[in-house]
Amino acid sequence: MNVSLTSEPLRPVVQTRPVPPALIEALSQRFGKQLSLAQVVREQHGRDESSFSVPPPDAVVFAESAQDVSDAVKLAAQYKVPVIPFGAGSSVEGHLLAVQGGISIDVGRMNQVLAIHAEDLTVTVQPGVTRKALNEAVKSTGLFFPIDPGADASIGGMCATRASGTNAVRYGTMRENVLALDVVTASGELIHTGTRAKKSSAGYDLTRLMVGSEGTLGILTEITLKLYPLPEAVMAATCSFASLAEAVNATIQIIQMGVPIARCELLDAVTVRMVNTHSKLSLPESALLLMEFHGSPAGVQEQVETVQAIAAEFGGDTFEWAHTPEERTRLWTARHNAYFAGVQSRPGCKVISTDACVPISRLADALLDSVLETQASGIPYFMVGHVGDGNFHMGYLIDPNSPEERATAEQLNHQLVRRALALGGTCTGEHGVGLHKKGFLLEETGVGAVAMMRAIKTALDPDNILNPGKIFEL
Amino acid sequence: MNVSLTSEPLRPVVQTRPVPPALIEALSQRFGKQLSLAQVVREQHGRDESSFSVPPPDAVVFAESAQDVSDAVKLAAQYKVPVIPFGAGSSVEGHLLAVQGGISIDVGRMNQVLAIHAEDLTVTVQPGVTRKALNEAVKSTGLFFPIDPGADASIGGMCATRASGTNAVRYGTMRENVLALDVVTASGELIHTGTRAKKSSAGYDLTRLMVGSEGTLGILTEITLKLYPLPEAVMAATCSFASLAEAVNATIQIIQMGVPIARCELLDAVTVRMVNTHSKLSLPESALLLMEFHGSPAGVQEQVETVQAIAAEFGGDTFEWAHTPEERTRLWTARHNAYFAGVQSRPGCKVISTDACVPISRLADALLDSVLETQASGIPYFMVGHVGDGNFHMGYLIDPNSPEERATAEQLNHQLVRRALALGGTCTGEHGVGLHKKGFLLEETGVGAVAMMRAIKTALDPDNILNPGKIFEL
Repeated sequence: MNVSLTSEPLRPVVQTRPVPPALIEALSQRFGKQLSLAQVVREQHGRDESSFSVPPPDAVVFAESAQDVSDAVKLAAQYKVPVIPFGAGSSVEGHLLAVQGGISIDVGRMNQVLAIHAEDLTVTVQPGVTRKALNEAVKSTGLFFPIDPGADASIGGMCATRASGTNAVRYGTMRENVLALDVVTASGELIHTGTRAKKSSAGYDLTRLMVGSEGTLGILTEITLKLYPLPEAVMAATCSFASLAEAVNATIQIIQMGVPIARCELLDAVTVRMVNTHSKLSLPESALLLMEFHGSPAGVQEQVETVQAIAAEFGGDTFEWAHTPEERTRLWTARHNAYFAGVQSRPGCKVISTDACVPISRLADALLDSVLETQASGIPYFMVGHVGDGNFHMGYLIDPNSPEERATAEQLNHQLVRRALALGGTCTGEHGVGLHKKGFLLEETGVGAVAMMRAIKTALDPDNILNPGKIFEL
Repeated sequence: MNVSLTSEPLRPVVQTRPVPPALIEALSQRFGKQLSLAQVVREQHGRDESSFSVPPPDAVVFAESAQDVSDAVKLAAQYKVPVIPFGAGSSVEGHLLAVQGGISIDVGRMNQVLAIHAEDLTVTVQPGVTRKALNEAVKSTGLFFPIDPGADASIGGMCATRASGTNAVRYGTMRENVLALDVVTASGELIHTGTRAKKSSAGYDLTRLMVGSEGTLGILTEITLKLYPLPEAVMAATCSFASLAEAVNATIQIIQMGVPIARCELLDAVTVRMVNTHSKLSLPESALLLMEFHGSPAGVQEQVETVQAIAAEFGGDTFEWAHTPEERTRLWTARHNAYFAGVQSRPGCKVISTDACVPISRLADALLDSVLETQASGIPYFMVGHVGDGNFHMGYLIDPNSPEERATAEQLNHQLVRRALALGGTCTGEHGVGLHKKGFLLEETGVGAVAMMRAIKTALDPDNILNPGKIFEL
């Protein structure tokens, strides 16, 4: 198969469908003040953290219940008008853009933690709950939810993109941590996938089919997640390396040794500088690993000793410890804000974000040349990596008004993805396909797998009203 | 919704489709000696460990490559004749039974370990490799594959049923441990799902859609799995309790405390007796926990101390240690053979196996009454549990010629499943739905979710040739 990646459009194709006044009238009747047609509200729901800009949705419904979602979808289905679920608006891949027009269904008001089953290490939430709000709500139980994308994303959005973050190296991604879902289908019907049991062989895994389906197969209205006991002991440290290569090779060995490290994050020198400026820190401005260890006091001590020995082998400096919970929070908040630190470093820029993930042994091959190519191009960038997972992000900081810069960034992106695929990796570890990686998906999985995805989509959403235009062309 | 479970047939509906001589002729031309029409071969491929007996498939193709599987499916598809993948024949739910006739595709000869990537903790195998053969093949790398259903099942079959076993409490099930698949679809096309990257957000999760689909969506021809470092330290112990309730409640507390126990298995006194007889052991004949601890020496020691303290709280006896690797192997082999120990205890019997799995806090509620009801019924039984996962099996040892015993066992089964569902659990933790749990699946997930499964099946296999009659009615 020979798929040309250069066919990937530099701007998304916008082909809006007409929204009949009768639908707006019916939505208005049903939803009253929960419906907004205001330009500012529509625009707010028609953009995300991606670099694209397209016309906003035709209307926004502020859903307050599964029944609201169901009724909105039923009305839209009558007129074959698109519906786009909206959580926190923090997608970096254009998931929220109304490329075919339609109704944005904002689930932000569905923000209740419905049931904490501490005795089973599970929690059931509405989709608009954010990851920080969830952890606040369960704090008193001694449990926590580890998945932490950079933004304070909604749990619904995190399901939809199969998100992960800094703790995934130990705790897995949304794929491993969602037990059950309530989903409104394309016809407006409410279905249930899964139970609170830890494992099940009861039929097709609809839960995991929905996780990562980016709003194209259903709208999530209730989510049951795994929780974990807060570790008895937590230690966090940074370690500087003279070169990026040494930091990456130390990481590879940490993972290959089977150390159950909880976080293993990499910043290059350029990015450390941006983070220092943004978060008012004074981290040493060279390649930096940020690590966290969870376990019993003795277990954590063992992990630390092993990792210190590996780091020393690769010329790593002495560990700098974040001693108090406050210091740890400061460190990880700075890491989570690396994206915004990058954005701030070039006022007015937009970010094109890469998200390749490769088998751990190929991480140096994938990452180092990609950084060198970027530096050679002259495009400003930041580089952060969930390197324990073999996943890293280049953020190309482009002038949105410069077609040349966009083209250069896309070229870098293509080279990076091709390299990752050749090394047995994936074009997206955690951000999703959205508008921007449709060509990459085809190259990665082949025509047959994408045809199977299309067949599923067509079977479950025959009128293509659920977030159309994302993941693949129909 | 009100679904009557008593509508579950006590015998499967057999409705074979005609297999035209032209298909047999074409298969014979293509496959020569790899095709068998012999009665004994067909019968061997038309039964499994379930209690049902139906006519065998019309022919058996011994596939030796993905191309063989593809060609066999293409020929069968031309004539709309069913194809049933066959691995080790160890299903307990009738997955292999040719209830609509057709061609059994035996992948047992596809038994090569294709690529061991020790540096990435992954391995790629053909579907006919068994779990024991896999572990033999990777032993020299210091890695292992933890998933271990009772039988020496094939990896393909374990994918198809989303199997787990004794290590799942720590290492997860096939759901968590399959990275990528090659699949022959209903049209005979070969597709690829996933890469060797540890995580991905690249489109619909076809890998996990296939895992647990019981041969109804495709036939697996290549499987990439996660491997784990052999733990530095392993300790295994048994602990006896005066009552089943105390053993179960100790288990609940072990899990709730977050102990990363590697195995936590329960046998009741009746079953210990059967195992002692079958495996020539002298385990104390009362409720028994079999446990294993993996980690660093210090980590294992910590786990053992915590669990000993919990066990003592519930009146558990002093731990009996399996000191050597040979003693450990003997203990776990005996546990894996508990099913056969049960069968041997009543010559000529057939087993109806339950497989409920509940949230850990509800395990006592689910398990204890089910054992009492079974004892009251007079039906001989065995009881084993992957209790760390909230999963347990009653094996009703019925006289296959006694409709009364079958009816009583089914009644017990229904009561047990209803109880598990009411407690937030699932009807099947690891065996799959097959022929026998279709009514239970409907009750568990509801009409809407099963309708979605049907829509997917119909989209991907419009002529219903892939293992028809399993999971749900069409």
